[in-house]
Amino acid sequence: MTAQDWIRKKRDGGELSPDEIKDFVAAVVEGGVSDAQAAAMLMAMFIRGMNRAETVALTKAMLRSGEVLDLSGVPGCKVDKHSTGGVGDKVSLVLAPLVAAAGVPVPMISGRGLGHTGGTLDKLEAVPGFSVDLAADAFARQVEREGLAIIGQSRAIAPADKILYALRDATATVECLPLICASILSKKLAEGIDALVLDVKFGRGAFMEAVDDARELGQALVDISAGMGVPATALLTDMNDPLGRAVGNALEVVETVDCLEGEGPSDLMEVTMALGVEMLAAAGMGESEEDRRGRLREALDSGRARERFDRFIAAQGGKPEALRDGARGLPHAHTVLPVHAPADAAGYIKDVDARKIGRAAMILGAGRKRDGDTIDPAVGVSDLRKRGEPVGARDVLCHLHINDDHGREEAVRLCRAAFRFVSDKPESRSMVLERLQPVTAL
Amino acid sequence: MTAQDWIRKKRDGGELSPDEIKDFVAAVVEGGVSDAQAAAMLMAMFIRGMNRAETVALTKAMLRSGEVLDLSGVPGCKVDKHSTGGVGDKVSLVLAPLVAAAGVPVPMISGRGLGHTGGTLDKLEAVPGFSVDLAADAFARQVEREGLAIIGQSRAIAPADKILYALRDATATVECLPLICASILSKKLAEGIDALVLDVKFGRGAFMEAVDDARELGQALVDISAGMGVPATALLTDMNDPLGRAVGNALEVVETVDCLEGEGPSDLMEVTMALGVEMLAAAGMGESEEDRRGRLREALDSGRARERFDRFIAAQGGKPEALRDGARGLPHAHTVLPVHAPADAAGYIKDVDARKIGRAAMILGAGRKRDGDTIDPAVGVSDLRKRGEPVGARDVLCHLHINDDHGREEAVRLCRAAFRFVSDKPESRSMVLERLQPVTAL
Repeated sequence: MTAQDWIRKKRDGGELSPDEIKDFVAAVVEGGVSDAQAAAMLMAMFIRGMNRAETVALTKAMLRSGEVLDLSGVPGCKVDKHSTGGVGDKVSLVLAPLVAAAGVPVPMISGRGLGHTGGTLDKLEAVPGFSVDLAADAFARQVEREGLAIIGQSRAIAPADKILYALRDATATVECLPLICASILSKKLAEGIDALVLDVKFGRGAFMEAVDDARELGQALVDISAGMGVPATALLTDMNDPLGRAVGNALEVVETVDCLEGEGPSDLMEVTMALGVEMLAAAGMGESEEDRRGRLREALDSGRARERFDRFIAAQGGKPEALRDGARGLPHAHTVLPVHAPADAAGYIKDVDARKIGRAAMILGAGRKRDGDTIDPAVGVSDLRKRGEPVGARDVLCHLHINDDHGREEAVRLCRAAFRFVSDKPESRSMVLERLQPVTAL
Repeated sequence: MTAQDWIRKKRDGGELSPDEIKDFVAAVVEGGVSDAQAAAMLMAMFIRGMNRAETVALTKAMLRSGEVLDLSGVPGCKVDKHSTGGVGDKVSLVLAPLVAAAGVPVPMISGRGLGHTGGTLDKLEAVPGFSVDLAADAFARQVEREGLAIIGQSRAIAPADKILYALRDATATVECLPLICASILSKKLAEGIDALVLDVKFGRGAFMEAVDDARELGQALVDISAGMGVPATALLTDMNDPLGRAVGNALEVVETVDCLEGEGPSDLMEVTMALGVEMLAAAGMGESEEDRRGRLREALDSGRARERFDRFIAAQGGKPEALRDGARGLPHAHTVLPVHAPADAAGYIKDVDARKIGRAAMILGAGRKRDGDTIDPAVGVSDLRKRGEPVGARDVLCHLHINDDHGREEAVRLCRAAFRFVSDKPESRSMVLERLQPVTAL
């Protein structure tokens, strides 16, 4: 078959066979299919859709277009967590050492991405000396020795995804569930993991704002991961308000240390513990949710999770001492500016708009608008007051960490506008809405 | 708006505004829209469709992407005919001098195209010296002086169509009615004509085999032409059997001369006269169909149409004397091979499969499989017996004109297989099935 035949079949609503999808992806990578042909196929896939079997085949083909790490020599059931991303989402930084300390190895390949702050890699790179570049064998050795490693995606992983993603971005074919799933999982499953836990966020600060869309994405991800032979579960978690009290790269590392020292904000810890329980369950560890929660709690309370974090930082070239004494060794912004509540504020914080806080952090330089933008690790928002907390006139709502006065007024305005107040204490609500597991037999 | 915005709108089934379409096409030509983006848009247009208003806007934008001839200085209502193409379709060669002799100027920009034989240009180039390259002003002067000119499409005409057509070919987005109409009309209306008559063919030898598809195409073409301000009508004509008795470039020129000398095959003359009547009507000439038919008959019988053809050939550098004495001056094939009816043939010819005859001509070298192929003007099929004619054992069914023995057996086999026989004389049927005129108010 030629490229035109494959395109025609999907154009007319047909189902592509696994071999057709495999050959198409191979031709994309080898240049036998032009950008224009790939773009036409992506649009046909977008409009006509792809069923689960097609999406599994696409994911497999993209995964196999590049290097797949082999961690079979590392003992234990290796489990990773993937988040669809949100504002203040430093869960990976807390979760990975916590779960590792509880005995489950966590091999994590992470991204930088675009957004209000950098990705997990950017946050870790706020620690002086920390390197996200480990060769495959060093990665495997570190997972075995320390129970965790977090590295960047090498060029060798899923090259088909790089090509197709750039085309999707240019051709308005990004928001397509099967293509999103194939992109995420072709990279994630290249880690050589045995099971996957997904944090699928919904709400103002999430990629999928509507719960229904997030649920659809989560269900597709767990189904397709299972179809790829990697058991997966997903939690739908609330991303309406910023997660934790800090948004910004170094600021989130500081908050990570707080969490590992037992001082973490309750929303962030609730999400982290729930995902940790899933990861232990995926690894077959513990008898019950209660038991698993107890193991995580013990890893935290004993200081073993904190210690594991230091070992992990040191193993990848970072200086754990930079995190001590108020994180003296991390980059700090020149100016720390309080944002105050209005003079008539009284009562409680009704909610905090994650999107506005995220935009403020972005304006200050914490994130990337486009690939290749540099980020400032020091800037961002800290000490965020949280939903349900009491508030009085002119109370400090948060601090802005500023290095460049450009956009400062706008950031202040956004932070102020993010907060809404209410006279009666709002009901607390759970951060975890639902748990999803594979339902489609593939 | 960005390219992504335009693509997204059509992707989601929206209607693009004339300005959006204009800007998109301009960006395609200027490079502001990449091939991948254009391909994604074409696929979205293919699947989501384009209404008449969008198609008119697309046609206008493509037309205006290049040079549009101005024939306003040439007196009279300029009318052209466009055919969707068929096997043995030399109608333009007969029709243009005939209509011109009746007093209607015919400015024709024609193509070469792919197919069983060359296009109108290739057929004319079988005449020694004939040139299809005239500058715009020479073209206008010749239309004024001789009443007709037939030239090739210069690079300056509808460059957007060239880009988009190449992409459609690569991305399986060819068979899309709005895109087909825009491609045809953006080139055709660059001639500067006042009215257009379309010959939309159906049947085995046509681009659109099914009558319903041909009708849909014809209706779209007349509607969109009208929407462009150029009144148009279309005839649906039968392309199941080859048109006339000759298929091949020089052979069709010979048949053209036969027609103009009153010796043309009845099917070919029926289609030619019907289209001629439409063209005269479009130019406002004649009181009734009867009157118009009489004028054409008079132009033919008086020899004025034949004479006009010679003048036209001479005006474009050809040698009219090459067409005399059995067309001595045209290229002739080395071998002329009769194809005989089987020994048990008796009765009448039921029908002749145009597609098989066309493939035979193609195999002999009369046509192009792909752009840039050279054609052999001398080869083809002549003296084709026609539907309804009596036939006896071993009668000659046609002659093959061969220059290269390669494929000769296959061509003979195809020609034999093209003929079906029947014991009772089949009913004769009209070549013209329907007449279409614009119905959509735009």
